[in-house]
Amino acid sequence: MTTFDTARSAVVPVDAEAARSAQDRQGQLTKPPGSLGLLEDLSVQLAAIAGNVPPPLPEPVTIAVFAADHGVVAEGVTAWPQDVTVQMLANFASGGAAINVLARHLDAHVTVVDVGVATDPPAPLPTVIDRRIRRGTRNLVVEAAMTRAETVAALDVGATIAAEAIAAGSRLLVTGEMGIGNTTAATALVAALTGASPETIVGPGAAADAATVARKAEAIRSALLRVGSDQDPLTLLGELGGLEIAALVGYITAAAAQRIPVVLDGVIADAAAVVAVALTPEVRGYLIAGHRSSEPAASRALEHLGLTPLVDLHLRLGEGSGAALAVPIVQAAARILGEMATFDSAGVSRKLED
Amino acid sequence: MTTFDTARSAVVPVDAEAARSAQDRQGQLTKPPGSLGLLEDLSVQLAAIAGNVPPPLPEPVTIAVFAADHGVVAEGVTAWPQDVTVQMLANFASGGAAINVLARHLDAHVTVVDVGVATDPPAPLPTVIDRRIRRGTRNLVVEAAMTRAETVAALDVGATIAAEAIAAGSRLLVTGEMGIGNTTAATALVAALTGASPETIVGPGAAADAATVARKAEAIRSALLRVGSDQDPLTLLGELGGLEIAALVGYITAAAAQRIPVVLDGVIADAAAVVAVALTPEVRGYLIAGHRSSEPAASRALEHLGLTPLVDLHLRLGEGSGAALAVPIVQAAARILGEMATFDSAGVSRKLED
Repeated sequence: MTTFDTARSAVVPVDAEAARSAQDRQGQLTKPPGSLGLLEDLSVQLAAIAGNVPPPLPEPVTIAVFAADHGVVAEGVTAWPQDVTVQMLANFASGGAAINVLARHLDAHVTVVDVGVATDPPAPLPTVIDRRIRRGTRNLVVEAAMTRAETVAALDVGATIAAEAIAAGSRLLVTGEMGIGNTTAATALVAALTGASPETIVGPGAAADAATVARKAEAIRSALLRVGSDQDPLTLLGELGGLEIAALVGYITAAAAQRIPVVLDGVIADAAAVVAVALTPEVRGYLIAGHRSSEPAASRALEHLGLTPLVDLHLRLGEGSGAALAVPIVQAAARILGEMATFDSAGVSRKLED
Repeated sequence: MTTFDTARSAVVPVDAEAARSAQDRQGQLTKPPGSLGLLEDLSVQLAAIAGNVPPPLPEPVTIAVFAADHGVVAEGVTAWPQDVTVQMLANFASGGAAINVLARHLDAHVTVVDVGVATDPPAPLPTVIDRRIRRGTRNLVVEAAMTRAETVAALDVGATIAAEAIAAGSRLLVTGEMGIGNTTAATALVAALTGASPETIVGPGAAADAATVARKAEAIRSALLRVGSDQDPLTLLGELGGLEIAALVGYITAAAAQRIPVVLDGVIADAAAVVAVALTPEVRGYLIAGHRSSEPAASRALEHLGLTPLVDLHLRLGEGSGAALAVPIVQAAARILGEMATFDSAGVSRKLED
């Protein structure tokens, strides 16, 4: 079995009994019932994931940034030159990108993985993990973006990175990515797996203008016609996805296999999560939506997954930035359940009977 | 002059030139322009507050929790016994309340101030600062909640606490409060100062049922009839407010006077901010809305102030809990502007010409 298949077969449902027990405990804490809103739901989910009340504090944190290029840029679907992918890889390596700054603020570890960048950096990047499978995907409008073997290899890269992070002590995994053109691939996957029409979920990605967005929609429509509508999730991932998206599917699934929560970033991670859950439904319970990306496909994917995003600050950068902003909220939820006094322990009166 | 008056006269407008310079710098950072959404706006505001680009990291953080009781509980406006105020004071003192847990997670200092609790704690609480002005306010339905002298004393308590926190090194102040019945007083102030009708902005506070909410609306309507509509903000604060609300007005204003940003929690702080800005319009630029409280009066107050909340997790606890969750976002915004690489420094290509 591949690393990814091994992870898939190890995923168990989250612990419903721990969830009930966490819910009970929330009702005993010194606050009006429900007054901590989504923080309470999050604490219950963390307990269900860990199988323990209170859940352990979800730290240390690893943010894995998977970078790859996309053949679909030939269709004019982005406002940025493809070289920006490798240039940003160097920026991640030297600590100057947004995700580096946000990670430092969280005391989180950033793991940068080249899973399929098209061009070589001008100088070697020793802090980047080189797992490049090929120099970018093929153009998904005209042929499958990845072969089955390439798809499986990318799934294994992601699963291995997650396993290594957890082995090194990480107890919360955050998704990150970089790849010029990847909102086109992600939106195509969301359309194919949720049944949404491309026109309704396509967005500007990294600041594309209306004509570029129209070309994105057309590219996705063509690709869906080419692939057809009756394909299994793994085939769709290969036909429409990307190397970093497949890596994220593996990363998410391997975290769930070890009962580690995963904070999803924006549309790329949300698309990967839709694929991961289509392949292994029990993965769903381990997922936390970090933020609501401005991309319409992200909202469609979260709705499909039944996830409520924690932060909505109109971010559309990717890299893991939105998810990083949610990490302190996730950790706070765990601490609330573990550290707050109960009505009985603190001698606080309960609400008057109605 | 009182401490509060001294603070008022020291408030200067935020620095528009620093704001422009911060906006320029955001456009040079290695990300699509605008892609960090509200985080960019927040970084610009922090630069304007500090008069510097990049702004200093807003830490250490102080969360001041002002506690007081409310005579209006005689009208049956809350589902909780009044003793919960003093019981929660003890809970804050021993570190078991939600705000204590959240503050530990932020490495923030919690300052608990008794500015008007109605009853004495069963045992002394050495970590609580005793600035009690009177044992709760009078019932605002039948008479002024506070005299002018009591109002001024409470404003001074808040201004002094802010000044002491800043003198001790704090560079970000967070509002906190506790007081059974205080959503009624806060909603009355928001109605009086924004012109909203009580029925449209009254909410359940700490889990009141429909009959209780109806009594709240009726109490506020009666109070507004009693007070009349042509009063100045300081008179309205005394007639309708509370000791902790007046302390928050002083706290917010004194922070602005020293060009320190203030993160507002929920409806109580939002009402205090409406009063503070009515008295000293330049205070507005120093305010950050931490979260959107579930109370309708909070949304009305934020709309009146033109503030966009950072977090919306359906919290309705108070204490400072919603604002505390926003603190890492505020700090991240400052770091983004200070630490991200520019396109030129990182050798990253810009967007293609349209």
